[in-house]
Amino acid sequence: MTDLNNLGSRAKAAQRLLAKAGGNAKTDALKAVAKAIDSNRSAVIAANKTDIENGRNSGLNEGLIDRLTLTDSRIDGIVDSILQIASSPDPVGKVLWGESRPNGLKIQKVSVPLGVIAVIYESRPNVTADAAALCLKAGNAVILKGGKEAINSNKAIADIMRSALEESGLPADCIILIEDNAREVTKALMTLNEYVDVLIPRGGAGLIKSVVENSTVPVIETGVGNCHTYIDSSADLDMAVKILVNAKTSRVSVCNACESLLVHKDIAEIALLAAGEALKEKGVTIRGDEAVCAVLPYAEKADDTDWGREYLDYIISAKVVDSIDEAIEHINRYGTGHSECIVTESYENANKFTSEVDAAAVYVNASTRFTDGGEFGFGAEIGISTQKLHARGPLGLANLVAEKYIVCGDGQIR
Amino acid sequence: MTDLNNLGSRAKAAQRLLAKAGGNAKTDALKAVAKAIDSNRSAVIAANKTDIENGRNSGLNEGLIDRLTLTDSRIDGIVDSILQIASSPDPVGKVLWGESRPNGLKIQKVSVPLGVIAVIYESRPNVTADAAALCLKAGNAVILKGGKEAINSNKAIADIMRSALEESGLPADCIILIEDNAREVTKALMTLNEYVDVLIPRGGAGLIKSVVENSTVPVIETGVGNCHTYIDSSADLDMAVKILVNAKTSRVSVCNACESLLVHKDIAEIALLAAGEALKEKGVTIRGDEAVCAVLPYAEKADDTDWGREYLDYIISAKVVDSIDEAIEHINRYGTGHSECIVTESYENANKFTSEVDAAAVYVNASTRFTDGGEFGFGAEIGISTQKLHARGPLGLANLVAEKYIVCGDGQIR
Repeated sequence: MTDLNNLGSRAKAAQRLLAKAGGNAKTDALKAVAKAIDSNRSAVIAANKTDIENGRNSGLNEGLIDRLTLTDSRIDGIVDSILQIASSPDPVGKVLWGESRPNGLKIQKVSVPLGVIAVIYESRPNVTADAAALCLKAGNAVILKGGKEAINSNKAIADIMRSALEESGLPADCIILIEDNAREVTKALMTLNEYVDVLIPRGGAGLIKSVVENSTVPVIETGVGNCHTYIDSSADLDMAVKILVNAKTSRVSVCNACESLLVHKDIAEIALLAAGEALKEKGVTIRGDEAVCAVLPYAEKADDTDWGREYLDYIISAKVVDSIDEAIEHINRYGTGHSECIVTESYENANKFTSEVDAAAVYVNASTRFTDGGEFGFGAEIGISTQKLHARGPLGLANLVAEKYIVCGDGQIR
Repeated sequence: MTDLNNLGSRAKAAQRLLAKAGGNAKTDALKAVAKAIDSNRSAVIAANKTDIENGRNSGLNEGLIDRLTLTDSRIDGIVDSILQIASSPDPVGKVLWGESRPNGLKIQKVSVPLGVIAVIYESRPNVTADAAALCLKAGNAVILKGGKEAINSNKAIADIMRSALEESGLPADCIILIEDNAREVTKALMTLNEYVDVLIPRGGAGLIKSVVENSTVPVIETGVGNCHTYIDSSADLDMAVKILVNAKTSRVSVCNACESLLVHKDIAEIALLAAGEALKEKGVTIRGDEAVCAVLPYAEKADDTDWGREYLDYIISAKVVDSIDEAIEHINRYGTGHSECIVTESYENANKFTSEVDAAAVYVNASTRFTDGGEFGFGAEIGISTQKLHARGPLGLANLVAEKYIVCGDGQIR
């Protein structure tokens, strides 16, 4: 079995050197990494072909094969993303707060790297490059554990990145890929508290749950989104249908897609007829409560498990509510704290919804699909945090740092 | 066994009401709580007498009896602390960031309550009042699990607080004390993810370790401090000895007390002679490496376990280092990331130490004893975070909140 203590201590040692290296060294190294991936793309694509073949042989469905596949244009995307991260402002060394105390102590709170970040993720190999580049820019070493389907692609990408780092004068061990797919290795990574400061799982609900249950390393939960669109009695119906259809169908497999529709009873019939038609046209199956099924004969009957489901598919649950309070209560009960939307023309209800719904992002009259690092103006992201500690919503470079108090005195004692 | 799901859902429901109540309601309720503790102090002191008797009968040592004891002046302290928290600015509802995006979306990041906070703590009953008041001011419900030695005192304080909340129109269940001392209850609390948003352990290394290992709820680690004072070759010796003696002896039982002395070899003999004398005078036992023992015949020989120990006693480990680099490496290896100090007159070494030492608070020429919410100007604190996620160092009101993005549009789709 892979010796994780060895990997962990190498990552820690590399991170100490990286932290000393300063902003320009990180920027230059990342530019060199981007260039190396660009010019070694044939090796990456060849390794990816092996993964695709193995995937087909082991019966992966076409959706997963698509997520796994690296094309020339996807590699262009990886290169561009690394270059964008390289040229972002350094998130380390910012003075976040400072004060001179009455006794003359000068206290500053500054941003510092988190240290060693472990990322456990599933099939998409571009996460290897993205996650590593983001962690590195923020002065962190990263230990990557990708899905076994993408092992050859991940290895090719990590090898190129490591060589480029070394040529730039930074330790290769700032990026360590775990190649051992044994379950015990992943479990051991989750309890490697001596060396790992933070663990970020990136993938489906099963992965997140396993990490939360088994990790003793502090975790940033990401990505499970049972997002709702609530059409209030005062909603502009055209706008509501456009927002709903966009949130549900613009990309069904992502965490900020809408999974559940709530409609106020006073507008239920007309809203459901319009929304139902538009969703049907896009091939979406509706699973409704009794009131929904009474209006839409083509809706399937929802059962109790539907309200908590993240379908990631052309399916939506739908329910008629008696009041905005019932909508908020339903969302706070079944939602995953990701992205929630109200469509309304009421000032009071907009304020009520944004105050009382407990989620990372709460929308008035806009699609939940905007919860995204790029759309929020943060640049590349490592995931969407759905927990409350540390950071909530899109995790950009600014969230991959910790704080440190630096206190300067001239002999103060207490 | 206590039904934690019932307690958890009551706390969650109470928190939703508290979050709607607004700043004035919280301030008024806390003032009423302070007044109620003030005027019902005889009940608290009577309950505390029972705890002290039980403690004596079960053989608690005098140090623990002292921590357990509530006197009139300690109750004054509790009342003052609650009043101070009541009149602090509300940490909820602050706009932390905001931007209008090119597509017209208006995004704001605002501070919101964390939700339900569980606090597991040891013998001191004033934590019951302090932790509850801090959590409440930040809009959070709190589930308290104190030490069994203080159960009667904790119950008396919690009962008074709950009644005062109710009379002020806030739900009593904003503060819930778990009275069941069964181990399984504490373990179940650590996995009550459905209702508990954050768990804060406050106590010794054993408690913290148990929480980190067993909790699936996100944890803020607090309080273990193996703090170092490093006397650099360029140090002002008088200042160094004063800082060291203060850090070690002003209060030995606290987490920001110095536990280990490092001395540069070039100044070792003269520094150790002066420091050794001053420490001996205060009754401190020195456990030194060979070089230390060669200079100080009265020093005991340290073994390998001493470098990682938090003595919380009149004992200090001591070691001679060849360079500032060795000092930093030693601290980063054996320290707990709490508070670390260099005494130096060198600009270069001050910068090197503050950059490279990985801890919540790094000091130049001042005692580590200053790591404290009050000393930093944050007001009351719920503990000192020694982890990197969310917040590091003294945890004040500003750290007991989460963020939420509120996104307002007029029909934007992606």
